[in-house]
Parts: sequence; C-alpha cells; structure tokens
Amino acid sequence: MADSPNCDLKSLSPLQLFERVTEQGEKVRALKAGKAPKDEIDAAVRMLLSLKLSYKTTTGQDYQAGLPPKDLVLINNGTTKEEDEDLVDPWNVQTSNAKGVDYDKLIVRFGSSKIDTDLINRIERAIGQKPHHFLRRGIFFSHRDMDQVLDAYENKKPFYLYTGRGPSSQAMHVGHLIPFMFTKWLQEVFDVPLVIQLTDDEKYLWKDMTIEKAYEYARENAKDIIACGFDINKTFIFSDLDYLGTSAGFYKNIVKVQKHVTFNQVKGIFGFTDSDCIGKISFPAIQAAPSFSSSFPQIFNGKENIQCLIPCAIDQDPYFRMTRDVAPRIGQPKPALLHSVFFPALQGAQTKMSASDPNSSIFLTDTPKQIKTKINKHAFSGGRDTIEEHRKYGGNCDVDVSFMYLTFFLEDDDRLEQLKQAYTSGELLTGELKKVLIETMQPLVAAHQERRKQVTDEIVKQFMTPRKLAFEF
Amino acid sequence: MADSPNCDLKSLSPLQLFERVTEQGEKVRALKAGKAPKDEIDAAVRMLLSLKLSYKTTTGQDYQAGLPPKDLVLINNGTTKEEDEDLVDPWNVQTSNAKGVDYDKLIVRFGSSKIDTDLINRIERAIGQKPHHFLRRGIFFSHRDMDQVLDAYENKKPFYLYTGRGPSSQAMHVGHLIPFMFTKWLQEVFDVPLVIQLTDDEKYLWKDMTIEKAYEYARENAKDIIACGFDINKTFIFSDLDYLGTSAGFYKNIVKVQKHVTFNQVKGIFGFTDSDCIGKISFPAIQAAPSFSSSFPQIFNGKENIQCLIPCAIDQDPYFRMTRDVAPRIGQPKPALLHSVFFPALQGAQTKMSASDPNSSIFLTDTPKQIKTKINKHAFSGGRDTIEEHRKYGGNCDVDVSFMYLTFFLEDDDRLEQLKQAYTSGELLTGELKKVLIETMQPLVAAHQERRKQVTDEIVKQFMTPRKLAFEF
Repeated sequence: MADSPNCDLKSLSPLQLFERVTEQGEKVRALKAGKAPKDEIDAAVRMLLSLKLSYKTTTGQDYQAGLPPKDLVLINNGTTKEEDEDLVDPWNVQTSNAKGVDYDKLIVRFGSSKIDTDLINRIERAIGQKPHHFLRRGIFFSHRDMDQVLDAYENKKPFYLYTGRGPSSQAMHVGHLIPFMFTKWLQEVFDVPLVIQLTDDEKYLWKDMTIEKAYEYARENAKDIIACGFDINKTFIFSDLDYLGTSAGFYKNIVKVQKHVTFNQVKGIFGFTDSDCIGKISFPAIQAAPSFSSSFPQIFNGKENIQCLIPCAIDQDPYFRMTRDVAPRIGQPKPALLHSVFFPALQGAQTKMSASDPNSSIFLTDTPKQIKTKINKHAFSGGRDTIEEHRKYGGNCDVDVSFMYLTFFLEDDDRLEQLKQAYTSGELLTGELKKVLIETMQPLVAAHQERRKQVTDEIVKQFMTPRKLAFEF
Repeated sequence: MADSPNCDLKSLSPLQLFERVTEQGEKVRALKAGKAPKDEIDAAVRMLLSLKLSYKTTTGQDYQAGLPPKDLVLINNGTTKEEDEDLVDPWNVQTSNAKGVDYDKLIVRFGSSKIDTDLINRIERAIGQKPHHFLRRGIFFSHRDMDQVLDAYENKKPFYLYTGRGPSSQAMHVGHLIPFMFTKWLQEVFDVPLVIQLTDDEKYLWKDMTIEKAYEYARENAKDIIACGFDINKTFIFSDLDYLGTSAGFYKNIVKVQKHVTFNQVKGIFGFTDSDCIGKISFPAIQAAPSFSSSFPQIFNGKENIQCLIPCAIDQDPYFRMTRDVAPRIGQPKPALLHSVFFPALQGAQTKMSASDPNSSIFLTDTPKQIKTKINKHAFSGGRDTIEEHRKYGGNCDVDVSFMYLTFFLEDDDRLEQLKQAYTSGELLTGELKKVLIETMQPLVAAHQERRKQVTDEIVKQFMTPRKLAFEF
C-alpha cells in the first residue's frame, strides 16, 4: 500500500476503499498485538484515519467494520454504476442530486407503481373527502397493490394498517413524524385497526447498545408516536423485545418466514455478508411478520387472511419485497404498501435527516429558539448569492430545504403556491421564506410537546398491552 | 455428465456427489417445466435416482436438497480425511467401526474432558450414593466443567439442569430415553430444577412438516418424557413455539446470542451454506438460550447467573461449544456439560438409532411381540457363524448389539459381568443373550407404556405451564 493514502484513493470504488480500510485496521491490530515500535504503530494509525476519511468523503458514510458499502450493489441490482444512481436501502439514503433522490427511477428500479392522479381520485371517491396533502403533493408517491386495498374496502372487507419505527435514540426529529401523521390520517378515513412495530431488537443488533437501552428508547419513542393522536381503541403499539415474548402467533409467523428465505436471498436484498451476526441475518423475518394478521390473534380473533396495508418510507421497501415474495408460499396475502419520499436533511436533499447529527434535524424536543437558529443557520437555501441577484433571477424551490419542509408541514395549498411563486419570482427573499418555515414549525413542535406531556406511562402501557381493539373479526 | 452415473462416481467425494445430485435435480425440474418429451424426462429421472443411490451408498445418508454432507468437513475441522474419522454432528452419526464411534478421539477433537474414575468418585462423595450405571459404565463418558458444578454444589450454590429433544415424530425409541433417564437421576440426587426444551421450531425448519404437526409431536413427546418419572414440582417442559411467545426473558437471551455469533461461525460449526434458510442459520441461538437462567424468570426469580448443567448426547455438543464461546461475552456463566455415547441401531453400532427407520429401533409403543421379533431378527450379533465355532472361540461383546443394549438397560452389574464372561467364553449362545435382552426390554417398555397412560393432557399442560418450581431463588 502506498504511504500516502490520498494520492490514488480517488480512483477507488467504495468497496475497494472499504477493503483498504479493513486491511489497514487489521495491520494496526497486528502491530499492536506484536508490540511493534510506537512510531510504526502511530504511522499505521494515521494511515488508518486518513483512509477512513477518504472512505467517508467518497461514500458519505462512516466506515463500519464488517459493513461494506453494500447499498451500491443493492440498488443497482448487481451493477456498479454508482455515479448516476442514488443510494437507497434501509440504512442509507444518498444522492448527488440537490433535488434529492430521483423517485421516478426508484419506482422503476424497485418495481413498484406510481401513485397517479387516477389512484388519488379513486381514494377521494372511496373515502368521500379530500385526500391528505402528502398524497396530493407526491410525498407518498409510490405503492404496491393499493387498488386491491380499495377493492376490499369498497366491498366492505376489512384490512389493517402496519407501520413502525427503529428506536435508535430517544430523540425523534420531525421527519420521523411523516409516516405516523399519514398513518393517523389513513386510520381516521378508513376506520381500521393499526399496529405499530418498534424494532428495539433490530437496534440492539445493529448498534452498540444494550437491550435495556433499546427497550427504553422504544418506550420513549412510543410517547412521541402516541402524541401524534392515535386512537387508543384502534391502535396497538409493540416493542419486539416485549411482544415476541407475549404472542405465540407472532413467533410462528416469524419462523414461517425464516423457513422460506435463504441466506442467499437476504444477501441479495440487504447486502449481508458472512461476517454479519446471525441476528441481523434473520431479522428481516421479524419486520415481515406483522404483515400477517395471525401475528395479532388478540386483535383479529385468530383470523389469518386480513389484508395489510403498510405506509412507510421507500427505504423500507426491501423488507416488504421479501415479505411479498414469501407470503403466498406460507398461505398469506401479500401486504400492500404506500411509499413516502425521504424527509431531507436541513443541509440539503442529498440525504435524509439523521437522528445522529443534531444539526441535520429539527428534533421534537427543540425549543422555539433552537428551531429558529437551526433553520436560519443550516437550512440549505435555493436563493441567490446576493439580494440583487435574487430579486432579478428568483430562488429555486426545487433545492430549497425551507420550501421542501413547507410542502410537508404547511397544509394550506393556496398559501404554499403563493410562497412558491413569490420565491421563484424573487419577490420573497430566503430570510422571509425561512421565517414562514420557522413560524410553521415552532407551533407544530410546541403542540407536539404539549400533547406528549399528556402521554403518561400508564397510557403507554395501555397502548402496548396486547388486547382486543374496537373492531369485530 | 456421463450417461451412466455409476461408472465414475466411486472416485467422487461426498460433496462432489452431492453437487451432481443437485445439478441433476435441477435438470429434471427444468425439463419438466419446459414440458420436454416424456422419454427425455424419464431418462433424467432414472439418472437422478441412480445418483441419489450412489450418494447414499457413499455417505450412508439420504440425499437432502440444500443439505450437503457437511459433517465430513465439520468434524475434521476443515480437512477431508474422511476414511479414518467418524461422522458426528447434530444431524448425523456415522462410523466404519463396528464397535461404534471412537469416543476417546472425539474427546480430543471436541476438546472436552473424559469422565474419569476421579470424577466419578468425586460425584459419589458429593451425593453420598453409588453413581448411576450410565456413569460407571462410561455411557456418559465426557464432560465440560463438571468439577465446577460440583464445587458449586459443595458450596451450597444452586445450579439447574437443562436437556431437550427435537420432536421429529410421534414415535420415540428406547435410545431417546437415555438422556432423560440420566437427567431424572441427576435431578433426584442433586435436587435441582430442570428445564426440558422441545425444539419443535427446529423440526419445522429442518423437516417437511407443518408448524401444527411439529407442535403436536412436541406435546406427544412430552408425554413420553413425563412418563420417565420427572417431578412436576421441579420440572418445566417447554415447546419453543409456545414458550418463545410467553417469555420475554427467553427471547432477550436469544437475541443476545444472535448478536454475538456470525454466519461465518455457524458455517464453521454446523456447516450451514448460503442456500440454507435464515431460520436454520439463527436457530443455534434458540438451543443456546435455555443455558442461561434469565430465560426462565418465573423459575429463577429473574436471577441471571445460576449455573446450568446440560446432560446430552455428544452430537449436541456443537451447539454448546458455541454457547460457551458466547456466554462470557454476554455476561453469563458457561453451561457445564455431561456427554453420552450414542445409542446404537439394532443393526450395529456404526450409526445411532433413528426414528425414521422402524427396524433400527425398539419403539416405546412396540408390543412385547414386536420387541421379540425385532431383537431376534435385527440385533447385530457378535456371535460366531456356527454353534460349534461359537462354543470354541466365543462371542464378541464389543460389537454385539444385544450386549450393548444390556449395558444401557440391565442395571445389575454382577449379572451383566456374568453374561459378558459367558458370551465371550462361548458358553452363552447369541439366541440366549438375545433372550436376556428381550426379557429386559419387554417389561421396561411395558412399564413405560403403563406410566405414559397415566399422563393426561392436563398433566402435560401443568408441566408445560411457565411457573415457579419448588425452589427459592
């Protein structure tokens, strides 16, 4: 290996870089174990850090031992044309395009269907009211078998909703609310049962975290989820660590899925390697199982074939592609899906918000002042460099994060359209647009905090107790 | 591939043969799917059957799709000197030696310790009575950390017993009773809690069997186990499919083990391949978890560090080598082990009894007449070809299956020694030795059947209900 790692690293693929870092890490360990001279070890460590930096610069991700940059392979179906492809898998979202991931391409690549005007109109007819702005604005943009769910609904056949969250930390950000806000709306307009999975076992397996911590985060996250306003009589929230030990129906479905998926398959879908722990390898079955109503005998009275509809961000689709592949082989209906776009980081739509970077996100615990400071300081602007240029050429809403956030959180269509026109024409300045966003987010977060305060441990316990819901099956 | 599969197959390794069968199977499927001419399909099927026969002749095992002859690799630690090595893993036992597996070699290979006279004497001192004839006769011949269990016992520290069974069919044979007879004795002399795992999930994953069937077998097998005379106040029997959905403590330990074992490790230990389902790959954690007392909070009052002692046949050791490797990394004590030899098939000690071959076994449901016929017809004899030769040269107890069975089931040491001398000297004929065995087995099986009749569904339910046992922790 060359002494200066940076001279030729630019030409390496992410995978080659990953291998270089791994090799160098082993070299450092070997030197330390062999009690090599201090300066030799120091030089090797410097090289390692430099390689890790190159890896991060190239891939946009921190190096993690045993976790190669698999997403590249994953979403390209085996080809390695990274440059013009976006990275999307359950652990990473990355694109070189400031407008964000190319969702039309993703639909083709994932083999899902676009939520088009016909489908939106059909939903409107079925529920007899205006569809949620997430549907109207293309925030939920892709689906699988939503027409079948509507067929069933129109024929008075029951279905249920399933969504979830990986409780990786106590702090949730506003992006985490998107699937829950939409799910709450779905539950209200269709009046159906809802199950919400908290994959604390997943977080324990993937992160450097104790089981107790993962479970604690699950309960804390449950409070934020409940604060979205779910109906306690129609909603069951469960931690895997808890519920797996309470429901034989759930484990039976897990083991059924596990029997029908090989290591080769999860390797292809999720990019697992031989160095991954067996918990990760078998975990996809645990996220799959709630798609089958027999995982919840207490809710569905033991009925096996109730249709499931899963609203989730598109990065979770690999789990459910697998689930849909297995379903007919274990005599279960395929779950239907509604996919959302990613919620962009404050710094720009190239990546989604992350709870691990406090400045990439507006947290649900942020004060009005923090929200103001973060938006003013970090929200990527589509405005021009000077006021004069901005007035002359106008701002670019396609890359402006403040405007993107408003498409998520400003419900008033007319107001949003006015803002767009004013910003694009140059009439509205970046600072003024940010002010609108601040004034939208501050009361929204404050109201969430107020509702969350009402969520006592007793209420969490009720939501998380396996029980019959307000539906007959 | 050559048209006649037998001409060159003798030179192939088991793995090469396995691959040939797999290829040919795929060819047949392709022909059928492509609606090829009937004679072409027939020829391909004949070839497939012929290849399967060669595979069986070479390996002594039936070909199973997706299950390569991994044991060869397994027990040789990567080398392929099959010829002078015995095959021993959780799914197969095979040796070319009529005396059976070379257990001294196995102790060296597995890295366990021999149960020597010193240890047997120490057990005798600890319990204040004569050790079980399984110990005195080397039927339980190997151990891990039994001295630590005795240290704990002598210091009045608690420990518990854990054993189990894979309920692959309703019919259990007398060989299946060995670990349970011994465990019952251990429970009586040490007065400790006992947990018995029925791995119905494993059988569902490995066999062509529904979940319902596997669970039914578990409950049926529980009756035979209970009929061995376990104390209901000191014994908890559980089906994985049941108990996993009843105990959060159990699942938490499973997921802890799953986090600390990689696919590379289970590949090395159990010979799994990329084509194996993810259920098999993660299953070893489920057999590992009952080694930790926190899997049974109802019994051990949530206490984490109660020492576990596992009596089992030596083929189960790979699971517990893995468990012992993981234990310190998840802050748990390593389980101790007592290993038994295999119970030989009636046809000879080259392989263990199998429930799938009715003539290899005396079943617990056999009538006195069936027992008599089976022993007379199938029990491999170490006697001479003619009476004259037998009288002159004597029989060979080392390979005589009737004599081997008597070492398991005839408790009277003096009688056994008399029989050995008489048979070896030629005084006792094969038919006479078989008669002794028949007269030993008939009442033993009949008594078992009588006790089993007393085991009602209600009693099974009590044994299988998670509950506090008659011990304070």
